[in-house]
Amino acid sequence: MGEFELIKRYFTRQARNTALGIGDDCALLQPATGTQLAISCDMLVEGRHFLSTVDPFKLGHKALAVNLSDLAACGAKPLAFTLALALPRADEAWLAPFSQGLFALADAHGCELIGGDTTQGPLNICITVFGEVPVVNGRSQALLRSGAQAGDDLYVSGTLGDARLALEVFRGSVSVPTALFEAARLRMEQPTPRVALGLALRSIATAAIDVSDGLLGDLGHILQQSGVGATVNADTAATLVAARACQTKTDGRLTTAISPAQWRDWALAGGDDYELLFTAPVSKRQAVAMVALASQTPVTRIGQIDLERGLRLVDDQGQAVPNIYTSFDHFA
Amino acid sequence: MGEFELIKRYFTRQARNTALGIGDDCALLQPATGTQLAISCDMLVEGRHFLSTVDPFKLGHKALAVNLSDLAACGAKPLAFTLALALPRADEAWLAPFSQGLFALADAHGCELIGGDTTQGPLNICITVFGEVPVVNGRSQALLRSGAQAGDDLYVSGTLGDARLALEVFRGSVSVPTALFEAARLRMEQPTPRVALGLALRSIATAAIDVSDGLLGDLGHILQQSGVGATVNADTAATLVAARACQTKTDGRLTTAISPAQWRDWALAGGDDYELLFTAPVSKRQAVAMVALASQTPVTRIGQIDLERGLRLVDDQGQAVPNIYTSFDHFA
Repeated sequence: MGEFELIKRYFTRQARNTALGIGDDCALLQPATGTQLAISCDMLVEGRHFLSTVDPFKLGHKALAVNLSDLAACGAKPLAFTLALALPRADEAWLAPFSQGLFALADAHGCELIGGDTTQGPLNICITVFGEVPVVNGRSQALLRSGAQAGDDLYVSGTLGDARLALEVFRGSVSVPTALFEAARLRMEQPTPRVALGLALRSIATAAIDVSDGLLGDLGHILQQSGVGATVNADTAATLVAARACQTKTDGRLTTAISPAQWRDWALAGGDDYELLFTAPVSKRQAVAMVALASQTPVTRIGQIDLERGLRLVDDQGQAVPNIYTSFDHFA
Repeated sequence: MGEFELIKRYFTRQARNTALGIGDDCALLQPATGTQLAISCDMLVEGRHFLSTVDPFKLGHKALAVNLSDLAACGAKPLAFTLALALPRADEAWLAPFSQGLFALADAHGCELIGGDTTQGPLNICITVFGEVPVVNGRSQALLRSGAQAGDDLYVSGTLGDARLALEVFRGSVSVPTALFEAARLRMEQPTPRVALGLALRSIATAAIDVSDGLLGDLGHILQQSGVGATVNADTAATLVAARACQTKTDGRLTTAISPAQWRDWALAGGDDYELLFTAPVSKRQAVAMVALASQTPVTRIGQIDLERGLRLVDDQGQAVPNIYTSFDHFA
């Protein structure tokens, strides 16, 4: 199968939202009047972002999910994406499920593949995604990292740390019961981009970011760009590891030797979570609860924004917890 | 040097045209009223699109040039681009010249880096580029592959086949004098995207494509999408290999044993040319000559579009030349 046949067979579908899709030198995209385009780009490399053994269907899902997560963090409505793919060989047994996983998520969000590139090379998936953000009275409605205000509540969506737990099991550094591993693995391999929540937060949140490098590391970007500090309840965050619930058997005994400190570490600095971390005024607590409900996305208040710079961790008793966490760095 | 430091040091500059540049979950881009966005994406892989020994400055140039060439082929004005970069390590001796080469060309075209991604992995450069195309009376002014009409002239810009000659020298399959090699190598390593010509052709050309996989292969896309055929003068095309001029010494003798047929092969199916191949009505010959002059881009008429499907090659005497050429295919 040649390059053009590969593109035709697995990646060409009828253009819908766009003026012109795949098959010319460029795709043509015309954003609606009164909107801006939000653009983000993520590159996934085998052995770095995913294991060579991963199910291609799940990989197709994840490659787009991590990009949609960036749109969600901006409150942008998904429109379209480009896909550049380097493959060791044109392997149909891989391409068919990969494209199915990709399009299943794309279709769920009305996000159209409008162009891209395929080439031979070490497996590498690069997606650039385009979303729409309204501009009202000359003011963009995009959620930025820079809008957090002292006194704001700090929230995170969904669950934290599960992807890291699954990674540690793959690495052989911990051993856990199958049910617990499967719960964690689902979060690592098929994260859910919080698109509906992001859209609903446009008029509520003051700042937002998606959690990809670890909660505290990504919180650092909000704090730096907003010029504020924060206090985070580490115990609350630690409860957000979904797999943790699987460690308690019906008789109440624990099935693992994972310490509370370890759960906390994964929640605070696990990485690969693709949840939304956001701030909102205290006056918006009811509104936040309502959009969480409407978007069927759990949201947990984990702290607050402070005038005083820096990040303070506390436990449930209000006692200081040392901050030993660093953000994931691809070159560290 | 970590990932964020790397991005900050080499790839972050002040946003200009865009509403919001690097440093948030998404970049924000607001196309001017009455315009469409043209979007294209190219991935360059070490060992496939460039040699590991290539000068990083030139590679930075080429990575953007091949993308700008796609905008040129659509008649789109460059606006912005994203860069995703997988690197084996954060090597400053490579990153500094790479980013300089990239920004030198970007600045020459007013094309702004608005976002991207960096990660560790086998060297891979993925650029997605955004350009602007006017929409007049509801009609896009983009040049497409599908507009060629029977009777149109067929033109190509610049020179052909030089990149392929340089590649063959690197492969050791031919040996040529240094001056000839250097002329060819410049075309391989630093192709010139024909942006000004593409913009000027908007109201003149009926169809256009950029020549990246070989002249005849890319012509095939125009013919297929326009539902027409073409006759190409192979001898005229063969004169467009710039390096060929270097083979004749001042005393008129040839310095190489490269046959006329070989020059022709490289011109017709060399690949990596990044020239514009376009069609225009016979009535526009004067206009084509004027925009070639105005954009300082040589343009050569190499054939014509026919009602009869298929591609016919002829020589200067009008005799048929067998078409033995196939387009470059990354998986063939």
